[in-house]
Amino acid sequence: MTNCRDLDLQGLCAYLLAHDDYVILTHTSPDGDTLGAGYALCALLRRLSKRANVKCPDTIPAKFGYFTDKLESDNSAEKTIVAVDIADEKLLGSLEQEYGGRVMLNIDHHISNKGFAENRYLDTRAAAVCECIYDLALALNVELDKFALEAIYTGLATDCGCFKYSNTTPKTHRIAAALIEAGVDAFEINRIMFDTKSKARLAIEKAALESMEFFCKDKAVLLAVTKDMIKTSGCAPDDLDGLSAIARCAEGIKISATMSEKENGDFKISVRSFDGYDASELCRKFGGGGHKAAAGCTISDTYENARAKLMNAICEVLE
Amino acid sequence: MTNCRDLDLQGLCAYLLAHDDYVILTHTSPDGDTLGAGYALCALLRRLSKRANVKCPDTIPAKFGYFTDKLESDNSAEKTIVAVDIADEKLLGSLEQEYGGRVMLNIDHHISNKGFAENRYLDTRAAAVCECIYDLALALNVELDKFALEAIYTGLATDCGCFKYSNTTPKTHRIAAALIEAGVDAFEINRIMFDTKSKARLAIEKAALESMEFFCKDKAVLLAVTKDMIKTSGCAPDDLDGLSAIARCAEGIKISATMSEKENGDFKISVRSFDGYDASELCRKFGGGGHKAAAGCTISDTYENARAKLMNAICEVLE
Repeated sequence: MTNCRDLDLQGLCAYLLAHDDYVILTHTSPDGDTLGAGYALCALLRRLSKRANVKCPDTIPAKFGYFTDKLESDNSAEKTIVAVDIADEKLLGSLEQEYGGRVMLNIDHHISNKGFAENRYLDTRAAAVCECIYDLALALNVELDKFALEAIYTGLATDCGCFKYSNTTPKTHRIAAALIEAGVDAFEINRIMFDTKSKARLAIEKAALESMEFFCKDKAVLLAVTKDMIKTSGCAPDDLDGLSAIARCAEGIKISATMSEKENGDFKISVRSFDGYDASELCRKFGGGGHKAAAGCTISDTYENARAKLMNAICEVLE
Repeated sequence: MTNCRDLDLQGLCAYLLAHDDYVILTHTSPDGDTLGAGYALCALLRRLSKRANVKCPDTIPAKFGYFTDKLESDNSAEKTIVAVDIADEKLLGSLEQEYGGRVMLNIDHHISNKGFAENRYLDTRAAAVCECIYDLALALNVELDKFALEAIYTGLATDCGCFKYSNTTPKTHRIAAALIEAGVDAFEINRIMFDTKSKARLAIEKAALESMEFFCKDKAVLLAVTKDMIKTSGCAPDDLDGLSAIARCAEGIKISATMSEKENGDFKISVRSFDGYDASELCRKFGGGGHKAAAGCTISDTYENARAKLMNAICEVLE
């Protein structure tokens, strides 16, 4: 946190205009927002006649190709190192060794941002970093290409569950309105992001539903995702995102828990609670923690034992 | 269609100001938009010191209680009969006998609207009738109660799949922005509408996923929902809505079909197609029809025979 200078939007504009030869870094396991922000910023900088490239520590999922395939690398020098949507340097993953301690500008929206960069533009009210990039384009009066606008829409929509979650603000909706007006094919992007599931994902959802157990007078629900299930379904890590949402949406429950078996056989537990029940208190019993309504822990035991311990602990909280 | 007078927004305002003692009718199997529009309009009319009530031909699902429970019936006379979100008089269901041929004003957004009412306000660009009610409140300068604004948000969000579908316009987003600004708890409404599933619904989703068959080199997928599955899962008709979305989201497929067994044992088939394949042509083979990308038909046969006929027909189209 030492010497991290916070920029406002004007300061960010000035910084970007004053520098050149950008490399823009995204976080590991890249999502719509880090990629959307990275590619849109890159497109914006090129519009300003700057040289800029995006680097992602992991393979970019093919589904983002409608904007990530639109920018050719320009093989420029890397003088100005920028990170987008990265709260903690560790999230640079395989890029940390090369760029750790050298990030000159970080554009982010996480309240947990660690201030690891020399300069920081942090807007914690933004539903997505892509909101910041949109603000930036407006402030610099840069007209973005359609693919860059689609990159921004992608980050916007994916980070707020398609305007479903509580981080969605009036501004989020107004930016979406402007993007659709500018020609963004929001319907097609939403279809790719929210309504397309791989065969493996459908198989793991089926298996997860089969594992689903209601207990404690239907006030709690437990979902299991074991290594066997992952293997049988043929899932890639990407296919496992958000499976716990299946448990959490069960009507009338007070606590939902998902047990995900890790490579080493431990169970990663994620818990959601409703109506004032405390998920973090529950997870502390197993050495974990988190927020009142969403917490996590790890249980190192067999499936049967881990399941029994977790169910007992949940019933204690509910009774 | 004879003598149906089309009103513009100004005409609609004048009409509503000139009349009193309203009964507002919603359609059968009420959804968020017909209920949202009905209750918001009722609240708006009462703000104008009019007497107004809402009548729904079916039981209103409890999940809409956060706005439908906020209006007491005022036992007024029924002089002015209004329909909301009703394209065809038949959709009055159990109310058709009493009100059929007597609807004085219809507020709707369906391009298929049959013009059965004496007066009609039809905005086919509106994602939801609730957009029209919002326009109306603005035009009449009426400040609505929070529950009425939440009713409008509900219709807006549910009719466009939470801003996911192609009927979502910049205006839809801007109205959502204004509603959130006015205090609507969009997150909680979205949780109830999109992220809450009954135990029976989860059970039928599991069964539907178990029935799911990829065929024709994974270019097609078939989902079955039989009477047995419905009985075993304990589903109410409401729980069956949108099950075909499970089939349609399978990645890379060109045609998805869902077979739903009706009370009489016939199979109602709904087909979605992608990348230019023609679902309506396929359904015409079985005496049905529809749009190129979404069509339907009925097959009166055993499950095994219906399944085989459908799969053969789909493979013919794809090969």
